[in-house]
Amino acid sequence: MSRFLSVIPVADAVKAVERIAPAPQAETVPIDASAGRVLAEDIRSDTDIPGFDRSVVDGYAVRSADTTGAGDSIPALLRCVGRIAMGNLDSSLVIGNGECAYIPTGGILPQGADAAVMVEYTEVAGDTILIRKAASHGENIIRKDEDFRSGERVFSTGRRLTPQDAGVLAACGCADVTVAKKPVVGIISTGNELVPANVVPGPGQVRDANAPMLAAWLLEYGCLPRRYGIVKDEREAFEAVITRAVAECDVVLLSGGSSKDDRDMTASVIASQGEVLVHGIALAPGKPTIIGTVGSTPVFGLPGHPASAFVVLIAIVRPLLDRMLGQSEPLVRTVRATLSENIPSQRGREEYVRVKVKDGIATPLFGKSGLLNTLVRSQGLIRIPAGFEGLEKGSTVDVILW
Amino acid sequence: MSRFLSVIPVADAVKAVERIAPAPQAETVPIDASAGRVLAEDIRSDTDIPGFDRSVVDGYAVRSADTTGAGDSIPALLRCVGRIAMGNLDSSLVIGNGECAYIPTGGILPQGADAAVMVEYTEVAGDTILIRKAASHGENIIRKDEDFRSGERVFSTGRRLTPQDAGVLAACGCADVTVAKKPVVGIISTGNELVPANVVPGPGQVRDANAPMLAAWLLEYGCLPRRYGIVKDEREAFEAVITRAVAECDVVLLSGGSSKDDRDMTASVIASQGEVLVHGIALAPGKPTIIGTVGSTPVFGLPGHPASAFVVLIAIVRPLLDRMLGQSEPLVRTVRATLSENIPSQRGREEYVRVKVKDGIATPLFGKSGLLNTLVRSQGLIRIPAGFEGLEKGSTVDVILW
Repeated sequence: MSRFLSVIPVADAVKAVERIAPAPQAETVPIDASAGRVLAEDIRSDTDIPGFDRSVVDGYAVRSADTTGAGDSIPALLRCVGRIAMGNLDSSLVIGNGECAYIPTGGILPQGADAAVMVEYTEVAGDTILIRKAASHGENIIRKDEDFRSGERVFSTGRRLTPQDAGVLAACGCADVTVAKKPVVGIISTGNELVPANVVPGPGQVRDANAPMLAAWLLEYGCLPRRYGIVKDEREAFEAVITRAVAECDVVLLSGGSSKDDRDMTASVIASQGEVLVHGIALAPGKPTIIGTVGSTPVFGLPGHPASAFVVLIAIVRPLLDRMLGQSEPLVRTVRATLSENIPSQRGREEYVRVKVKDGIATPLFGKSGLLNTLVRSQGLIRIPAGFEGLEKGSTVDVILW
Repeated sequence: MSRFLSVIPVADAVKAVERIAPAPQAETVPIDASAGRVLAEDIRSDTDIPGFDRSVVDGYAVRSADTTGAGDSIPALLRCVGRIAMGNLDSSLVIGNGECAYIPTGGILPQGADAAVMVEYTEVAGDTILIRKAASHGENIIRKDEDFRSGERVFSTGRRLTPQDAGVLAACGCADVTVAKKPVVGIISTGNELVPANVVPGPGQVRDANAPMLAAWLLEYGCLPRRYGIVKDEREAFEAVITRAVAECDVVLLSGGSSKDDRDMTASVIASQGEVLVHGIALAPGKPTIIGTVGSTPVFGLPGHPASAFVVLIAIVRPLLDRMLGQSEPLVRTVRATLSENIPSQRGREEYVRVKVKDGIATPLFGKSGLLNTLVRSQGLIRIPAGFEGLEKGSTVDVILW
């Protein structure tokens, strides 16, 4: 191994991970549990939605022409000929000239009527209803198929579903929906200095913070993290764990180990079992990243510093997961903000700077990437593309929110 | 029941729900599954983090004074007296004047040294190391306790945890963490016109879209939704389901039923089993909302229109859940945007308008609240406070993202 990495641009690293991404697998889930899942089928409505002209108010179904000129002082007088019941089509009810019928919100508009008048603008006088407001044609009505037409494509494959989408799926006749399976992502912690959270670190030791952070992020992103504990830098043990993880998972993340020796062993073990495709990315923080495959399973060697590991997760691992989920658009929440101060950057590498965001102002936090506290004190990241020498105070930036 | 509701302001409705919110319950979860959960304890670090002065580079531990003036043309020449191994404290190693030791990233800084020089700026010549760059005191070192001090409060009760927080929890010695239990939220659909997603609607019928939407949203928000199916407007059946739901759940949502008859029966059944506290909120959409209690269980009658139900969920139900979760700050993601056109509004009621957001421009979607499609075509809501008569084109607005 050379002591200097031969780095490649971020875009090339992303292309590399997209090439090795396993194809999406599908499964069926109930719509109640579909939010956050990625559609693996196009959705078309099996009916018009709604299936009939529908009142959006409680009031009276009328012929709008009968209400022309009606107002507080001169109400229109209409004869009430019936009452619409919810969920029933009384097809015998027809509204003729000078007639109306009581209609509840959501009620089916009777034949002859073309509008509804809110009950607040009416008054009952025996069989006669005083209408104190003119209704225009179609007023307070949702037209049959106004929401969605039968056969219309409502959602396309690759959409990450929202809670509201679950409602639309129900309306379209989908009680269950086909979505991408959650990728199983193995996490192997490596590094002689690491101890788990429940052990008090001895001299020179640190607790493994990256593996829980990765697991928690993956779970939130719609993956199934699987932990393989901490492997010390002993080659045989390391190889055995990788072999097991590759067999059991769709992707394997090796969570360093911050030292060069550790990275070198990671690369060497991947190379001996499969192929190292990338060793070093023009990305700061995150340069010493390894991308490889063992069999057909993508294997990543992530940097040991927490902030570096997190940036690589966002910038490099996420595009792989998006491909595996068949997600058509990246799930990146950004807010636009104004930069509070200059950020210098080195041309030729993509740089991510943690920022606080408040009241539309983004303030960079320049802490070392080995620190955890800047990750939790910040609200997101600003990306500085490789071609830039920095960003100027006062410029508008898109903050990628955590 | 009066046909006109006596509406109360949104702020009063929120106060009412906060008064009836059951106290948070706690449970313990592994940190890998803690993202999105709300802390039910303060977290203090049980150690300094890191526990020792630590190099953030692969290179050489030096006394910075020995490198003063070092550069490409005139390197400092230091004698290499050792090599730091990861995870071990070799306390016998002391760096004297003119000496250095190889140190890996994350390695413990040996006694006598006060800085580290990156390996890229060094050259090996037998036992002598050529240092081609001056190091300042503390350079490339994370100080013992620089991240967090032992005993320092790292997180406070009420914080909604992020994936990065899971890493910090591990570093602080928490393999498990005490969080608020997920509230169990019952969902009862009411309305004679409703059929479930897997039934083709007959004349005058519509599929129940609200219940799956509510369930999906609640699941994403960190609750456990429990569905009770669709209850027709038959009083006895309705009462039996409410009794069961109130016994099994922490909160019960009655998902209308858009008609006034349906709302009236909901209010009447709540009143007969418990108490109706609010019937009507100065909120658009969302006015015909019912808030009550049966025993100590909060029971909501939500409006039947999907957009109305969703706004009430965000504006009224969410504060209740936040209180039940002990969440110190509302989980509201907003983006700032410029309004593309005027939005008229009625003074005296709080109004929520669905908007599309693109490139910092918020465009209102004025569709009827009975439509589903505006909910899925929009990215969020703009809130217009009760005291405003509208918002002007070009003004800056905070969009509450879905």
